[in-house]
Amino acid sequence: MSFEEDVAKAHALLQAQAQAEQQAEEELPDAELAAAVAEALVQVRKQNPLVGSITNAVTMEFVANAQLAIGGSAAMVYLGEEGQAMAEMGHALYINMGTLLPLHEEAIPAAARIAHETKTPWVLDPVGIGIGGMRGRILLELAACKPSIIRGNASEIIALASLWAVPMTTGAGEHSRRGLVRGVDSTDQVEDAIAAACALARFTGGAVMISGKQDVVCDAERVVRIFGGSALMSKVTGFGCSLGGVAAVFAGVADPLVAAVAASCSYKKAGTRAATRSSGPGTFKAAFLDALYTLDSGEIAERITAVESVA
Amino acid sequence: MSFEEDVAKAHALLQAQAQAEQQAEEELPDAELAAAVAEALVQVRKQNPLVGSITNAVTMEFVANAQLAIGGSAAMVYLGEEGQAMAEMGHALYINMGTLLPLHEEAIPAAARIAHETKTPWVLDPVGIGIGGMRGRILLELAACKPSIIRGNASEIIALASLWAVPMTTGAGEHSRRGLVRGVDSTDQVEDAIAAACALARFTGGAVMISGKQDVVCDAERVVRIFGGSALMSKVTGFGCSLGGVAAVFAGVADPLVAAVAASCSYKKAGTRAATRSSGPGTFKAAFLDALYTLDSGEIAERITAVESVA
Amino acid sequence: MSFEEDVAKAHALLQAQAQAEQQAEEELPDAELAAAVAEALVQVRKQNPLVGSITNAVTMEFVANAQLAIGGSAAMVYLGEEGQAMAEMGHALYINMGTLLPLHEEAIPAAARIAHETKTPWVLDPVGIGIGGMRGRILLELAACKPSIIRGNASEIIALASLWAVPMTTGAGEHSRRGLVRGVDSTDQVEDAIAAACALARFTGGAVMISGKQDVVCDAERVVRIFGGSALMSKVTGFGCSLGGVAAVFAGVADPLVAAVAASCSYKKAGTRAATRSSGPGTFKAAFLDALYTLDSGEIAERITAVESVA
Repeated sequence: MSFEEDVAKAHALLQAQAQAEQQAEEELPDAELAAAVAEALVQVRKQNPLVGSITNAVTMEFVANAQLAIGGSAAMVYLGEEGQAMAEMGHALYINMGTLLPLHEEAIPAAARIAHETKTPWVLDPVGIGIGGMRGRILLELAACKPSIIRGNASEIIALASLWAVPMTTGAGEHSRRGLVRGVDSTDQVEDAIAAACALARFTGGAVMISGKQDVVCDAERVVRIFGGSALMSKVTGFGCSLGGVAAVFAGVADPLVAAVAASCSYKKAGTRAATRSSGPGTFKAAFLDALYTLDSGEIAERITAVESVA
Repeated sequence: MSFEEDVAKAHALLQAQAQAEQQAEEELPDAELAAAVAEALVQVRKQNPLVGSITNAVTMEFVANAQLAIGGSAAMVYLGEEGQAMAEMGHALYINMGTLLPLHEEAIPAAARIAHETKTPWVLDPVGIGIGGMRGRILLELAACKPSIIRGNASEIIALASLWAVPMTTGAGEHSRRGLVRGVDSTDQVEDAIAAACALARFTGGAVMISGKQDVVCDAERVVRIFGGSALMSKVTGFGCSLGGVAAVFAGVADPLVAAVAASCSYKKAGTRAATRSSGPGTFKAAFLDALYTLDSGEIAERITAVESVA
Repeated sequence: MSFEEDVAKAHALLQAQAQAEQQAEEELPDAELAAAVAEALVQVRKQNPLVGSITNAVTMEFVANAQLAIGGSAAMVYLGEEGQAMAEMGHALYINMGTLLPLHEEAIPAAARIAHETKTPWVLDPVGIGIGGMRGRILLELAACKPSIIRGNASEIIALASLWAVPMTTGAGEHSRRGLVRGVDSTDQVEDAIAAACALARFTGGAVMISGKQDVVCDAERVVRIFGGSALMSKVTGFGCSLGGVAAVFAGVADPLVAAVAASCSYKKAGTRAATRSSGPGTFKAAFLDALYTLDSGEIAERITAVESVA
């Protein structure tokens, strides 16, 4: 693809996005959910929830900065005893499987168990699922700790539903055999992962987020679609990880579905705004953190385009 | 707190800051110290001191970039043998307790011992003090290595003075029982940590920095107050860590008190300038590194608002 | 050096650079190489090569962001089994010796062996060579795995040629005794490392990149010089590391010499552009990633100033 084609494609994307936004502004799908999402951001800024994170080394700083920008407080740890301390001390816990070290084989399940036992909400990002054997073993152990929120791209969500062998309803057979992850990239579309996400949500009793051009958040009862953001979000490492980290901040003040939707709305809103104030991935990331910090709580719920009941 | 209240509060803070700056410009509290601080920055840029760091994974890159921006050279290591090599080879050493790994239990005290034995100036940041048991054990071992500079927020300084059981004078009893750290956040005010800081400084024979809205630097003889900066410095991870790292760069060319004051002045000056050139935490961080790089050595000492003798 | 002298020096540098660029535009030294370099960038954007990296903690995020900005896909790992998985699964592998952990003593050679056996192109950055003993032991093991591309500063290249005892021709004796690295900084000039680089290239059968004010890339047959960039590239950590990571992206679609030259040209072109859009190291880094993302494939080869045959 030539440079000119790239630019033309980017313009087409922007136009499609503008139309979708126009549409999004015209209909507000669920007033109660929208109000809860707005209130969640108000509460985050008021309560400044402390989130402990065991997270990957590549994007640790971005996760912390996003958590601070939205209004939370961040503390990253490696050691098992420290993960457990944060699970007890914090308002929520974030576990991201990115760059595993040998100590994580004990530290991650131990912290997740404490969170589960103490009813501290916790968020799981199964990034890298499929690479190596230890990652799979840890993820298997985490099933029993039932994460309040799971966040991944389409392939990761399908792969996790398959690994945990959660019972699926429609279309499950086909999808559970897919979910082939290419490094950290998704080879599946968000739409193809919804059955897996709903199955995971029924199993955990919490919420599941599928990140993509359009985000989908579901729990056992509802499927929520959130639109916006920017194509540049996939050109900077850590937008997925930090979205999970921000979901953990929201989980410190709201129930899983509202927390997940609020995080996704915040990202889509801030991403849309940042795209207008940047000239590439470098300035985009800075503009995104600015936008996250200055979000108007009354506006983020407008990113929700649809709320459907699960049959 | 609503968005509008946030903005109003920010404006009030900026106004208060502008007044304090006005005041700061009118009186120069200690001409000799001011001259030494200016000279320290000149020497850093001239000598390009090499600082080895054993520092936390979240903010490692920011620490290195701040050290480069001020005029130093940075090398980060994990392994014990490499920390010792840097303690011998470098002009100064920086140890930050952030994200501990099991190897740090040996590596950190070993490097600190070499620094102490070879009289290489070294800076300790006891971030996270109070989380987990290993952190406390390492910090206890470090007492004997007498850091040239200790940097922390108010709660961390109080907690370290308590852990090391350094003898306090006025008001010590009350404060040593406080210093409860909330993750990595301070729950105490800078003013409440001055007695602990002075006690630590008497014990080490070096300098102690308390970071806050107003920074305080003290040694066994003097208490120096430094004003300025921006509220955004607490909305980006690593401003504390990198201030410690920059203090280590200055410690490569100046005595502990001057180095600590020069680092603090540089941060307050650069932070004040960056606040005028940014629209949130993302652009603020980039503008801050720009400002650090282009600081005028003749201007940073104007951040000093008061120098008092310790009774 | 005073602030004013700094500014004057910066202006002189910019002027010298502008002249050299003018000159560079007038003569295109090797039309075939230039076409291959342009095509390499086109192919990277088309094929989105996946690169696994075992790389240092300080600059991991910058490496990933640079790999994404140029058009590749990035996955960073620590564990031995995961490094091997990425060596098999990825289009190329990147190994950077920066911040070693004990596990790297097994993980790095194991991944390099898989890359060598499966003919996956791989890039070695011997940063920190000379610090500690483990680093030297790992580097010795890597000789047998013959990296497709080696990237370092002048001192690192000289030190590696000396460590691997590769047979040198002209001027080798003198240089092999130098290569004293000061932390991560070069104490040698690019020109002084060319004999060592050529000797390494003859030994591996691949390409060697020497980073500096002017980059030099050589293989067993040619020495290519690439001009441009900005002095700010040495004031931000990770420009060397991420150049190696981007060379690995190019190595996923092109032969070692073309890949190395394409990476270097991309960096010099993006650096030159970013310097005009920034006011210090903080904004420079963001502008650089923007520039890398929007490079015109038809323009990067103009950074090549000379192509010489090796006698």
